[in-house]
Amino acid sequence: MTTGVRRRMGVEERKRQLIGVALELFSHRSPEDVSIDDIAAAAGISRPLVYHYFPGKQSLYEAALRRAADELAARFLEPHEGPLGARLHRVMERFFDFVDEHGTGFSALMRGGPAAGSGTATVALIDGVRQAAYEQILAHLGVQEPPARLELVVRSWVSLAESKALLWLDGRRIPRQELEWQLVHDFAALSAVSAAYDEEMAGILLKILADEPADGAFADLVGRLVRLGAGAVTLPEQSRQV
Amino acid sequence: MTTGVRRRMGVEERKRQLIGVALELFSHRSPEDVSIDDIAAAAGISRPLVYHYFPGKQSLYEAALRRAADELAARFLEPHEGPLGARLHRVMERFFDFVDEHGTGFSALMRGGPAAGSGTATVALIDGVRQAAYEQILAHLGVQEPPARLELVVRSWVSLAESKALLWLDGRRIPRQELEWQLVHDFAALSAVSAAYDEEMAGILLKILADEPADGAFADLVGRLVRLGAGAVTLPEQSRQV
Repeated sequence: MTTGVRRRMGVEERKRQLIGVALELFSHRSPEDVSIDDIAAAAGISRPLVYHYFPGKQSLYEAALRRAADELAARFLEPHEGPLGARLHRVMERFFDFVDEHGTGFSALMRGGPAAGSGTATVALIDGVRQAAYEQILAHLGVQEPPARLELVVRSWVSLAESKALLWLDGRRIPRQELEWQLVHDFAALSAVSAAYDEEMAGILLKILADEPADGAFADLVGRLVRLGAGAVTLPEQSRQV
Repeated sequence: MTTGVRRRMGVEERKRQLIGVALELFSHRSPEDVSIDDIAAAAGISRPLVYHYFPGKQSLYEAALRRAADELAARFLEPHEGPLGARLHRVMERFFDFVDEHGTGFSALMRGGPAAGSGTATVALIDGVRQAAYEQILAHLGVQEPPARLELVVRSWVSLAESKALLWLDGRRIPRQELEWQLVHDFAALSAVSAAYDEEMAGILLKILADEPADGAFADLVGRLVRLGAGAVTLPEQSRQV
């Protein structure tokens, strides 16, 4: 019965199918709870045939991770049209879709642990996705050579999005829609706090806002916070000297 | 020569010394760049004698991590006196002292990777430090049973502090003093964004602020953001219905 299926698939096609099946299983269970037998059964082929295409569970896990990483990075792509806040919000919706679909596997991977495949290749894959997110945001902000403070804001916000998604998965006690909007405003808030300490950052933010509609979610919050920050949120040492 | 030293130390004393020496070495180099020979040399004893106390490098690394974790958690302790923002700022100063002192080891550990000892015990140690930070903050806020949104804000801020410290270590291009204050205000900003979506969070924040001096760094920013948030930062869907 499985032979019939096998004959219809070429090597690359079969590999793609196995990776898809593996990704599905690794998405809903911890890596240690997925066996080669599970993958073979889900693919409708024999265990030896799985080994014919992949040397073992670790290599299938890594291939599944690579596909998941590509899939996630693709969700960051967003047309450069319309208000920035709305663009970021659409990306957040797709990010939470991904987190929702791959919940258990995402948690197991990001929380680390011995079974989660924390080898150099895995760390590099995760860093690659973070880098893709970082570059997409800079592209939308229209900044080619980010100063250190902008890099810090964007990268630390990316890690905040990861953290909030992981915390959300642990019980799902807050509606994800709320967190998607929260993260849009968190980006604005972290940017504004940074701008409160640095004129270059304030300049970059105000320049970005100049192109935003005044009634957009992003422009509204950032504009208020930057104006607030410029006046009130100076370094306490500095304000004491006044 | 080393025999003389050995005779002067008891077993526990020698172990403590070796852990201290190991922590010093693991703080300034990646785990894979520290050998048992390095530790023996730095402790002034022979290689076999190190093995007499610890079965191998991994167990010494884990013991050093445990000491570092205890040391870091101890730095979170802060008297419940004075404005909250100032308290949080003093903790941030001590946190960055720690990050500064253990820079290379902190990076290697937190960035994961095969040599960084990402076993279950290590993950549990790191989570234990995060939990200690979380509990300290709740105690300072005077909240015994945090609602899900407050838990999310505090835990995601703890991860933000980690991220910013790691990003700071990568080149130290921003003065750490700036980041210490930034993180105090980030806490206020993340709280305010959350309060903008939830009345219970707004109530908790305003209650905390009632006990804060109006001119404190924390009260000033949170107060402004909460008042701002209550009016302006509603969910866009909601504001469209108005």
